[in-house]
Amino acid sequence: MIDFTASYTDQYELTMAYAYFEKGRHNEKAVFDYFFRKLPFEGGYAVFAGLDNLLNILETFRFDSKDLSFLSHIGFKQHFIDYLKDFKFTGNIYSCLEGEIVFPTSPILQVEGNIIEAQIIETILLNILNFQTLIATKASRMRQVAGNRQLIDFGLRRAQGVGGYHASRAAYIGGFNSTSNVRAGRDFGIPVSGTMAHSFVQSYDDEITAFRDYANAHPNDCVLLIDTYNTLENGVPNAIIVGKEMEANGHKLNGIRLDSGDLAYLAKKSRKMLDNAGLSEVKIAVSNQLDEVIIKSLLEQEAPIDVFGVGTSLVTGYPDAALDGVYKLAFSNDKPRIKISENISKTTLPSKKQVYRFFNPSGQFAGIDAIALKEQKNLKVIYHPFDPHKKTIVEGCAKTPLLQKVMEGGKRITGSLSLDEISSYSRERLNILPAEYKRFNNPHIYKVGISEELKNQRDSLIALHKNP
Amino acid sequence: MIDFTASYTDQYELTMAYAYFEKGRHNEKAVFDYFFRKLPFEGGYAVFAGLDNLLNILETFRFDSKDLSFLSHIGFKQHFIDYLKDFKFTGNIYSCLEGEIVFPTSPILQVEGNIIEAQIIETILLNILNFQTLIATKASRMRQVAGNRQLIDFGLRRAQGVGGYHASRAAYIGGFNSTSNVRAGRDFGIPVSGTMAHSFVQSYDDEITAFRDYANAHPNDCVLLIDTYNTLENGVPNAIIVGKEMEANGHKLNGIRLDSGDLAYLAKKSRKMLDNAGLSEVKIAVSNQLDEVIIKSLLEQEAPIDVFGVGTSLVTGYPDAALDGVYKLAFSNDKPRIKISENISKTTLPSKKQVYRFFNPSGQFAGIDAIALKEQKNLKVIYHPFDPHKKTIVEGCAKTPLLQKVMEGGKRITGSLSLDEISSYSRERLNILPAEYKRFNNPHIYKVGISEELKNQRDSLIALHKNP
Repeated sequence: MIDFTASYTDQYELTMAYAYFEKGRHNEKAVFDYFFRKLPFEGGYAVFAGLDNLLNILETFRFDSKDLSFLSHIGFKQHFIDYLKDFKFTGNIYSCLEGEIVFPTSPILQVEGNIIEAQIIETILLNILNFQTLIATKASRMRQVAGNRQLIDFGLRRAQGVGGYHASRAAYIGGFNSTSNVRAGRDFGIPVSGTMAHSFVQSYDDEITAFRDYANAHPNDCVLLIDTYNTLENGVPNAIIVGKEMEANGHKLNGIRLDSGDLAYLAKKSRKMLDNAGLSEVKIAVSNQLDEVIIKSLLEQEAPIDVFGVGTSLVTGYPDAALDGVYKLAFSNDKPRIKISENISKTTLPSKKQVYRFFNPSGQFAGIDAIALKEQKNLKVIYHPFDPHKKTIVEGCAKTPLLQKVMEGGKRITGSLSLDEISSYSRERLNILPAEYKRFNNPHIYKVGISEELKNQRDSLIALHKNP
Repeated sequence: MIDFTASYTDQYELTMAYAYFEKGRHNEKAVFDYFFRKLPFEGGYAVFAGLDNLLNILETFRFDSKDLSFLSHIGFKQHFIDYLKDFKFTGNIYSCLEGEIVFPTSPILQVEGNIIEAQIIETILLNILNFQTLIATKASRMRQVAGNRQLIDFGLRRAQGVGGYHASRAAYIGGFNSTSNVRAGRDFGIPVSGTMAHSFVQSYDDEITAFRDYANAHPNDCVLLIDTYNTLENGVPNAIIVGKEMEANGHKLNGIRLDSGDLAYLAKKSRKMLDNAGLSEVKIAVSNQLDEVIIKSLLEQEAPIDVFGVGTSLVTGYPDAALDGVYKLAFSNDKPRIKISENISKTTLPSKKQVYRFFNPSGQFAGIDAIALKEQKNLKVIYHPFDPHKKTIVEGCAKTPLLQKVMEGGKRITGSLSLDEISSYSRERLNILPAEYKRFNNPHIYKVGISEELKNQRDSLIALHKNP
């Protein structure tokens, strides 16, 4: 739905590009890593999302005529504008598969291209991947506590503007069943879901007529919102009357929805009233400021809830707002490159790399990933990335590489996966992540190590810059 | 930039619309209020933003052929699809001006239209206004503490996906000077700003060559990022060398930027080194996880900072994620309408309304807004909206109405304002908001009252629904 032209970038990408261009460096090769440093939600893992969108966007990422005249207007010189006229991304991308379970420090994706193109795509890459990974991770936490109950995304109205569009997509990858967001349903194939607002009931002089009219209009998908005036005194009794009338006409009331008050108490009371009326198949849906903690608590209280509608906290990734993913130069002009920080954990890892995931004999993730030099043949010892005193021997353990080539010369080399395929893959991977990494409180820390060869290269680059 | 068709809505708007349509109610008139209940950031005010975008979108809000075939695919019947084919918003909108300083409970905007159109636009209205109001408010807080220093939006990479587009616009309304977001610059006329990333410096074998090349490419707008390797040992000395070389060539180094470490300490040290080298006009810019609290603290420490680049916390409205704005039916089919809650503060205010703002003799906001019935001639007494024991006599005080007609029959009746005009208006209004509402800690509560007539109408509707 969105017109992603190459002006979807930060100005400094262009001022740097101009400086490279002026020095004739525009064909110099560069490699950038995408990674993050801190897991969101104080959790033990993240769900990587956004890749398919990003690759589609990059295939057609160009400056259009409006972009070019704006760049001219703000002072870029004509010969550079002429160069940008033909700009397209012609590089290679290596990436984890979308839906993969990922951890801090490891490159999740690597871009190889000329230094100008690799730089110009930085902003859109971070914008898409940071946000969708945040939301897929949040959704996955809700899925964990909800078991097999229905989870519906209700977030568009409270989403951060048009961010809601991709939020619905990421929520589905993380395990949601459907969305209220019609556009996301249309464009991504997510099942859409929705029934009535309070305004529908308010627009009638009495609640029961509103319920009857809705049931007549939607005899096969009728969920009644029961808290417009008084949930237990009017809402549930009126829903029961209409539910029985529907039965008499050969239809079934699908559910009732609670959107305020003490949801655990009201769900239990409503369940009992429905059951006593012989409407035990009528489901109970709830909404109103839910998140994974509240869902967990409702279920621990044995609230008989079948469907959760989640809005704000899902689509904004509350309370975290953003994944801190970064895009760092690792290699250019045939040399490994580094950014140094006084804090070793913020010093970057140089060179082209591969990430290996280790497996237990039972087929579960072993709790160790290793970052190695790409050209490296063997992997014997890995070190803690920041503490040189910690190391482990990994030679001979079962492992698979996580980074796969997904784009070559600016073209995707694999087709687009359906959202269902991505979502299923993510669930499979999460299933083989041991439980201790999934718990909410003090989850076990998944170890990410660096190979001895990578460590040596990093350390000698640090030494070189400290004592040139 | 975004293709806002009418599928940018929640599914329940359409299922309700279908039920209205089936009952032949589609020409019934309805009035909805947009308002919020809680100020963001524990602050004392909010800055209303997003109106101009919303009005532009509504003028062309239609279901396109993809939307219609999707709606058919998910089961809507052909005669209803045919109706939606001709859908457009033909109603009226009354609104506060964009940039207005607004408070909880009061309608900020009122929609009058047929019940179907008024319902279908709910989602986009909430999506646009909730988010931009949140971000403009956040930006305004940063402007307050930054005084006349430069504030630059750096947020696109950490924004919630495409939400970053409108975030940059709202930040400018709230008082930012420029943005790194090139697309927002192009489309909204916001000054764009940007220099270099660490990758630029890393891509060279030594820092000083990177600085020299950048200065050659941008002799009139050169800001050097000085923390790639070692800020005080290499970064500043190299920047000084290049600054002096630029001077010798008749140019000037504009600034240096710090993006890590102790910003107060490093800014002071850098300032001294620059001054000692005779480069006292070189500005110091800082970035890295800034927000209004950190900016305030840096300035209290007398850090000699001229420019602040703010990313995540600005464009995501961290820590709040969303403004809780809602859209509630107040009037339909010639009757006032209400939604009742056990909590009186969540019971809605019925009827068409006007909001009045009172002024002090000095021309400042008096700290009182009053919500009255629209047709009401006089305003004598106003009540606390939720506590019937609190009332004030306001007869004779200077006041102006806040809601103005901005759209009639689906067409704007005023032209689009420039972003500079909106931003200036907002600043003027903020200037006449007394200081006690602007402080960060326990700000004074701006009083919003309801007229006696409105209170009586609400209370009799509550009684009617409690004892039908």
